[in-house]
Amino acid sequence: MALITFMSDFGENDHYVAAVKARILSINPEQTIVDISHSITPFDISHGAYVLRSVFREFPTGTIHLVAVNTLDSLNENYIIALIGGHYFLGSDNGLLSLISEEDPEIIVELKNPDIENTVFPSRDILARNAAMLAGGTPPKELGTVTTAFKSYLDRQLKATRKQTSGNVIRIDHFGNAITNIDQEIFNILRKDRGFVVKFGREEIRSIHPTYAAVEPGECFVVFNSNGFLEIGINKGNAAELMGLGFDTPVMINFDEA
Amino acid sequence: MALITFMSDFGENDHYVAAVKARILSINPEQTIVDISHSITPFDISHGAYVLRSVFREFPTGTIHLVAVNTLDSLNENYIIALIGGHYFLGSDNGLLSLISEEDPEIIVELKNPDIENTVFPSRDILARNAAMLAGGTPPKELGTVTTAFKSYLDRQLKATRKQTSGNVIRIDHFGNAITNIDQEIFNILRKDRGFVVKFGREEIRSIHPTYAAVEPGECFVVFNSNGFLEIGINKGNAAELMGLGFDTPVMINFDEA
Amino acid sequence: MALITFMSDFGENDHYVAAVKARILSINPEQTIVDISHSITPFDISHGAYVLRSVFREFPTGTIHLVAVNTLDSLNENYIIALIGGHYFLGSDNGLLSLISEEDPEIIVELKNPDIENTVFPSRDILARNAAMLAGGTPPKELGTVTTAFKSYLDRQLKATRKQTSGNVIRIDHFGNAITNIDQEIFNILRKDRGFVVKFGREEIRSIHPTYAAVEPGECFVVFNSNGFLEIGINKGNAAELMGLGFDTPVMINFDEA
Repeated sequence: MALITFMSDFGENDHYVAAVKARILSINPEQTIVDISHSITPFDISHGAYVLRSVFREFPTGTIHLVAVNTLDSLNENYIIALIGGHYFLGSDNGLLSLISEEDPEIIVELKNPDIENTVFPSRDILARNAAMLAGGTPPKELGTVTTAFKSYLDRQLKATRKQTSGNVIRIDHFGNAITNIDQEIFNILRKDRGFVVKFGREEIRSIHPTYAAVEPGECFVVFNSNGFLEIGINKGNAAELMGLGFDTPVMINFDEA
Repeated sequence: MALITFMSDFGENDHYVAAVKARILSINPEQTIVDISHSITPFDISHGAYVLRSVFREFPTGTIHLVAVNTLDSLNENYIIALIGGHYFLGSDNGLLSLISEEDPEIIVELKNPDIENTVFPSRDILARNAAMLAGGTPPKELGTVTTAFKSYLDRQLKATRKQTSGNVIRIDHFGNAITNIDQEIFNILRKDRGFVVKFGREEIRSIHPTYAAVEPGECFVVFNSNGFLEIGINKGNAAELMGLGFDTPVMINFDEA
Repeated sequence: MALITFMSDFGENDHYVAAVKARILSINPEQTIVDISHSITPFDISHGAYVLRSVFREFPTGTIHLVAVNTLDSLNENYIIALIGGHYFLGSDNGLLSLISEEDPEIIVELKNPDIENTVFPSRDILARNAAMLAGGTPPKELGTVTTAFKSYLDRQLKATRKQTSGNVIRIDHFGNAITNIDQEIFNILRKDRGFVVKFGREEIRSIHPTYAAVEPGECFVVFNSNGFLEIGINKGNAAELMGLGFDTPVMINFDEA
């Protein structure tokens, strides 16, 4: 049976997370449910999309991801199953799912549910129920109507020229590291063996380190992280606090003239 | 095998939660354990009762709920199994379990345990051990002595007249929404198609919304939530902070003269 | 199949915890993974060692403990499997594992991994992968090279004379209780039926209580906790805040002259 993962902005001190799991386990008591995080900032689809995008491909193909972030975005919210990169996502059609992959969904199904008009807890009454049925083998098309409607947002794009690539901090993580949208592949294409300088705030750093521990404790590192994005931090320290980095801080890499 | 749920005031950064789970898994390594929350405010049986009451009926009948909130309330604390609404609860007889249902327990068993006099960690040494044995099929009566002793507290009651129903905020949730003890059923009985006004602080609201997103972001909604209780919030905002709502804030509904 | 436990300093609002679990579940979708805590203070091997030491023996012998705390301590970090007290530990060789037991490891295996030079996420790429393989039955020696290299730290030792034993607070827990390194066994050996006084800050307490609830709410208790260590707290209160106890605060027990 497929795994179900579960991500939400529900926090840890109410009954909401357990209510969703209970609904799934009532349908199939043997179902494995893996928490991704329930500490997504309330209503913040950008935070949710970042976390989900960073991890969903680690799960086996066919995994079902229940995404309960900002689920009541509009009065007549649509709830959907989207098949993206071989994974199923169930969530509100609030744009979050458009931010987790460059690929368009292979299938989008708008969920039909007798309760859909009335519920104030769609994550339990619609998403959990349909996730359990999908995991139990019901084909997506039997759970609703195939549609092409899909709310799409554009992520802030990287700017890249021969001389410079410039991006932004897209996430301050638990360690205070600043993760940017500057991509290792694009960096490699642009660089062509030239020297370069990474610039942010008043800092200028002329190398990219192989790992977080390549600098002394208390010093600043710049690495490409495990998802291939440029990450700035302080070894054993909190870079966001100590260097004033935050969401959206500009970061650029200037390449030397050849 | 029955599910075991687990709720505590242990927090997330010590070994207490894992110690309880380890004890259960040592007795039965295949046991499914579902966390309800470990962020119940320390010693706060009112918070614990609210969360448990809101969710336990979502689980299949026969589920075993291990309740480790304020477990060392008195020097000669009793530990019990109570069967309520088809669900088994194991906890300290500290009054919490009297607050989760209007029903009296069908059976109460006082747990006997060789360690019961000595342990300073009854959640692990008494509750976990007995929860695992109950899940493994041991009948409750073999785990202790049937009793009628049951510490009972009365919840703050709703006041209801022909003209008005008045209650209180019983919980500020993770989103800053204020959940009251005003019940949808009683509201419907009293209302009889009359107009009404919901009053709290300086606010007066003349309708109940079908869902959280029925008002614009930043505006106040009043809904009956998924548990049938009146809930006040701000769409995409924190009502507790922005409108000064807190635990026990009075909320009333005045009905128009017919 | 053996259980895998998982402890980290990753926090709850990123994808790191889920990425490690996904890697394990990709290798074996049936694997049971039990969280110990993901709220270990970042880089704090002392906090991690305290939590792990307090709980690992509760799990069945043969359990596999994935320890992801301060995993990138040095540039050429070693990753190891250590067999201690019948349990397998996978972690960075950063000294944490030397603090969880008085026993030396029975076996230490330095993990070999094609990715080992390159990864910036060793918990996922090295520890998770090897934990899953170990749980699946691969013998430890096939996962790397047997070694004797093992980074060892000495815990702050208890001082004990005929007249006095003196130690320190080693952990302030979720309830604000102060846990010391003063051991019940040593206390019993030294005491020999004599009277004694427990001293810390300006407090002097002439008894050890059988349980947290042996004093009135708001009063100070001193107990030997479920791990056999002297613990100081306030019944229903936060001793660390109210009595100014913190990590490393000295605590001593003076024995009366016979």
